[in-house]
Amino acid sequence: MNNNNNNNDPNKSATRRLKQTLSHLNTSAIVANTGTINDNNNLTLSPPRWDHNEQDQTKLHTKWNGWGYADTKFFVNDDGNVELTGNRYSTIFNTHRVMPAFRPWVEKIMSVDLAYLSLARDNYPTLPDPIYNKPFLEYISDMKCYKEIYTDPQCRLYHGHGHTCQEIFELRHHETTKRMPDVVVYPGSHDHVVEIMKAAVKFNVVIIPYGGGTSVSGALECPENEKRMIVSLDMQRMNKILWVDRENMMACIEAGAIGQDIADKLEKVGLTMGHHPDSEEFSSIGGWVSTRASGMKKNVYGNIEDIVVNFKLVTPTGILQTGGDFPRISAGPAVMQMAMGAEGTLGVVTEVLVRLRAKPVTQKYSSVVFADFTHGVMAMREVARRRCAPASIRLMDNMQFQFGQALKAQSDNPMRDEIMGTIQKAYLFNWEKLEQDKMCAATLLFEGTEEEIEAQERAVMDVCKQYGGIGGGEENGIRGYFLTYVIAYLRDYGFDFYFLSESFETSVPWGNVLGLVDGVNRIITEECKRQGVTVAPFISSRVTQTYDTGACVYTYFGFMYRGMENPVEAFTAIESAARDEIIRHNGSISHHHGVGKHRKKWMRETISDTGMTMIKAVKDRLDPTNVMANGNLL
Amino acid sequence: MNNNNNNNDPNKSATRRLKQTLSHLNTSAIVANTGTINDNNNLTLSPPRWDHNEQDQTKLHTKWNGWGYADTKFFVNDDGNVELTGNRYSTIFNTHRVMPAFRPWVEKIMSVDLAYLSLARDNYPTLPDPIYNKPFLEYISDMKCYKEIYTDPQCRLYHGHGHTCQEIFELRHHETTKRMPDVVVYPGSHDHVVEIMKAAVKFNVVIIPYGGGTSVSGALECPENEKRMIVSLDMQRMNKILWVDRENMMACIEAGAIGQDIADKLEKVGLTMGHHPDSEEFSSIGGWVSTRASGMKKNVYGNIEDIVVNFKLVTPTGILQTGGDFPRISAGPAVMQMAMGAEGTLGVVTEVLVRLRAKPVTQKYSSVVFADFTHGVMAMREVARRRCAPASIRLMDNMQFQFGQALKAQSDNPMRDEIMGTIQKAYLFNWEKLEQDKMCAATLLFEGTEEEIEAQERAVMDVCKQYGGIGGGEENGIRGYFLTYVIAYLRDYGFDFYFLSESFETSVPWGNVLGLVDGVNRIITEECKRQGVTVAPFISSRVTQTYDTGACVYTYFGFMYRGMENPVEAFTAIESAARDEIIRHNGSISHHHGVGKHRKKWMRETISDTGMTMIKAVKDRLDPTNVMANGNLL
Repeated sequence: MNNNNNNNDPNKSATRRLKQTLSHLNTSAIVANTGTINDNNNLTLSPPRWDHNEQDQTKLHTKWNGWGYADTKFFVNDDGNVELTGNRYSTIFNTHRVMPAFRPWVEKIMSVDLAYLSLARDNYPTLPDPIYNKPFLEYISDMKCYKEIYTDPQCRLYHGHGHTCQEIFELRHHETTKRMPDVVVYPGSHDHVVEIMKAAVKFNVVIIPYGGGTSVSGALECPENEKRMIVSLDMQRMNKILWVDRENMMACIEAGAIGQDIADKLEKVGLTMGHHPDSEEFSSIGGWVSTRASGMKKNVYGNIEDIVVNFKLVTPTGILQTGGDFPRISAGPAVMQMAMGAEGTLGVVTEVLVRLRAKPVTQKYSSVVFADFTHGVMAMREVARRRCAPASIRLMDNMQFQFGQALKAQSDNPMRDEIMGTIQKAYLFNWEKLEQDKMCAATLLFEGTEEEIEAQERAVMDVCKQYGGIGGGEENGIRGYFLTYVIAYLRDYGFDFYFLSESFETSVPWGNVLGLVDGVNRIITEECKRQGVTVAPFISSRVTQTYDTGACVYTYFGFMYRGMENPVEAFTAIESAARDEIIRHNGSISHHHGVGKHRKKWMRETISDTGMTMIKAVKDRLDPTNVMANGNLL
Repeated sequence: MNNNNNNNDPNKSATRRLKQTLSHLNTSAIVANTGTINDNNNLTLSPPRWDHNEQDQTKLHTKWNGWGYADTKFFVNDDGNVELTGNRYSTIFNTHRVMPAFRPWVEKIMSVDLAYLSLARDNYPTLPDPIYNKPFLEYISDMKCYKEIYTDPQCRLYHGHGHTCQEIFELRHHETTKRMPDVVVYPGSHDHVVEIMKAAVKFNVVIIPYGGGTSVSGALECPENEKRMIVSLDMQRMNKILWVDRENMMACIEAGAIGQDIADKLEKVGLTMGHHPDSEEFSSIGGWVSTRASGMKKNVYGNIEDIVVNFKLVTPTGILQTGGDFPRISAGPAVMQMAMGAEGTLGVVTEVLVRLRAKPVTQKYSSVVFADFTHGVMAMREVARRRCAPASIRLMDNMQFQFGQALKAQSDNPMRDEIMGTIQKAYLFNWEKLEQDKMCAATLLFEGTEEEIEAQERAVMDVCKQYGGIGGGEENGIRGYFLTYVIAYLRDYGFDFYFLSESFETSVPWGNVLGLVDGVNRIITEECKRQGVTVAPFISSRVTQTYDTGACVYTYFGFMYRGMENPVEAFTAIESAARDEIIRHNGSISHHHGVGKHRKKWMRETISDTGMTMIKAVKDRLDPTNVMANGNLL
């Protein structure tokens, strides 16, 4: 692809203007040193996929104003039922993608009326004029230290946001955007990043690293008053597994590699990292390091800090790269731990060394049903105490259990399913005295040999039975995990019907789990009233990770806002009140989403003045001119 | 005890002088706000024990110029055999404390001749005159922010060293000492430390925290050119378990609490931290945090960074104390991880929040014998890969296996033992074709219910058998762990016979374990010749901790130096060459001993310039006047 094609595209005016300002350069170099540009105006420029040259082009498409694959959307079909487009998530959908129970359930529970629509704008909003730093652009062009560079508004827009409720609402409904990246640069290697960083320091340019773009903390928003050129450094062309060392069970992976792709590639050679955050289809390993990610199988593989052996961080004043790939060290303060979680404020993560394990022989999903959430939490705690938790164990509350049931796809054999359902219900609700609006379910994922899984399942069930737990079968297990993949699509679908929603999470000592959940429910309900929400909000929590001393509590909440003047402001106020309540219950500022900009106001009380001073001291020394100016954390 | 008694003691001249300089104060306050002083010239002032008011006074005594309890020493008895005094370590010694095989073995292997003695001086060396900062002493006296304070030379001496070979040699043989702490202060609470720190900043005084005093990195040595008053802040009066929370399985423990005492107290209520470093009889929890300690049961309980939930660090500019006791957090850089391992350079650890587990139902020691070290390492790696390691698994090399055998105490029934020994040997060496000078042994410690232990043992033995491992019985297991407790006593005993020795450790990827051990053996042998050592050095390694990606290798080495002019200089040069070789094999600067002053020169290549900058940035901001001036790390 040469630059002529780009010039033919009316949407590339900014690119054209940049080229004019740099007319003495070989302009094609500005557009792409390597790689291709798709001219059909789809946002394939930064597909969150392993291989840019992916043959199946549909795989490359992600939405510009919502979560996930462009081919995957909920819609109301001609029968008036909710249906899912495309052919993804086939584990749960098989051939049928219609969910007959969903519409009535959602209309009842979420107070939405599918007759009232609030559709997103279908054209792009207007971006502020870009700011160009010509010497920087000339320098990196001369040095050929990138694979591609883009200045078109769509690409800038795509890189200027994450996936908070506030950000997506704005993309859907606002005519203009706030400050956006001015240029998007794709480095191709660690050395490229080193050169780009040198240029950024020399010419006073801002760099905001971009991984999978799945942030839900406002981390990718540009500081509104930044007068310097902002470069979004998209790492997704650095997506190789550089090497695998089977002897020492380590792999070195470039920071832009996407979770699902890493998992697929390693699995093909019988290995696994075992890191599976809910965002794994789109989030990158560099992002995981930068935000201290947690995966659903952390019981076996650990969280990202346990999996990462080492990494390289390119800072404005030098490269942080500790020597050696030893499994553990006592060498003073853990500087890599001070770099991990820095959310792009200290430098750019370029390569990550991780530990590997053999791919498990087999897997098994399962579930356990409890009379209520309290009994479920008690069982979860006892499982943690005995350290018999399988790869994953999660507890959904009643609302989420219902949610999962409502998402059931139409069956190939509805009659049989109905009969089975009736038998099951009779068993659960009569014999076991479970109440349909109180019961909840834990979902389980076992890994290992058949015998190991059998032993694990026996151990977990022994504990669960003490708290009245009864086997809920494999399908409910699969359904629970599946829900975490599609719920982001549903969140976006809700926008179409005046329904704003978002999730947040925390970690908390075991003794405070129930109090925190109750408190958050109460506060959200109260604050909704105060903010003028006229219907009952939707609130649902699950326990997603368990530890010796506590658990991660993950909460979804949302409300139907039709008729409200400033729904986003109200939402933000309610979310903030919920976090205050969390902190009152000794819950953390975040378990794995990070701080970004949305949770900055709780940082000081979280890490103390002295902790803030430490971060500030490191920031000032490593980045004295504030090149890494995304404004997160502090 | 009032101050009159102290004045009667001629060794308390420094205390007297301090009192004269502060004559307007109530002088008894300077000596002790609470607690008692023992006048019999034994160093009971800072017993590394839980309770200063310990009834059995012998328990309080530790040596002033060597490792461990004063009542525990090796000696040659009237029969010419090596014997151990006292009644400690009875697990292995029962009633008999004579080791008939030890002398011939050690004379042969270590080239020592017990006829040639190099005994330690039996009087204290002369200390440099103390430097007093009168306003500081007045301030802390007015504020009553300590439990005890001492200025006598013995107490200063006791607090001015750790247990490196170099330090102990100097204590044994030198007439005078280098720079020593001027005053030893025992705070009684976190609030005391806060006040003391305020005063230190205000009056420009140096504080060196002192935990169990077991450092083997030179961390407790005073900087030679320090002109300010140096206060050794002995934390051992802060030794309480402040609270235990069974619901969330956490305990808050004061930093001066000693390992063995914590374990005993928790065990009485059915709980355990599970942290058991080899120094646990004497080392403190504050010291563990400050040096990133590792315990032998880390496979089940984790290393100190896994066990510690939170802690308080009193720095010169404020208290680092992150909010909440949540099990995991994503809140930017991990500031507590930047404080952990700071080796007293950033502040004073005062209280540590740790996670607990139920005390295991039962324990079982065992061992496995391999034909050689290579087969042993291969088995260890496979055990790690399958994650079936029990609470502890360690691999001794042949030399260490022999060492353990040589330490066997005389039996109650020597005839039966000899017969059993003969049968065992016939079995091992003939039937299994093991060679006595090549075979090595792994020691194992299992924990859990009887059934769990049985399953664990089966899993480990299945792997070991693949590498030719055969069961070595319980006694060899116990003997292996016991060796780690007495080897420090033996090190000191070696000094009596011109034998200098020391241990060092590293962590290394699995693939480099054997190469590193071979390389270190070769380098030590070569360097010994170069340094004029006339006999073969003693070198012995073990693998003490295993990880997914590598292992900790722990090496003892020593040599007989009779006839050499500067044995300590030679020793230091050899030790340094060994560390260079370790680093060439991608081994770490330290696995758990820390850096202190002895390994500073490898810090920069270990953590990179940028890592050094980060530590320096935090140090400069938290401690701008360098109150925490022990000079470790940087």
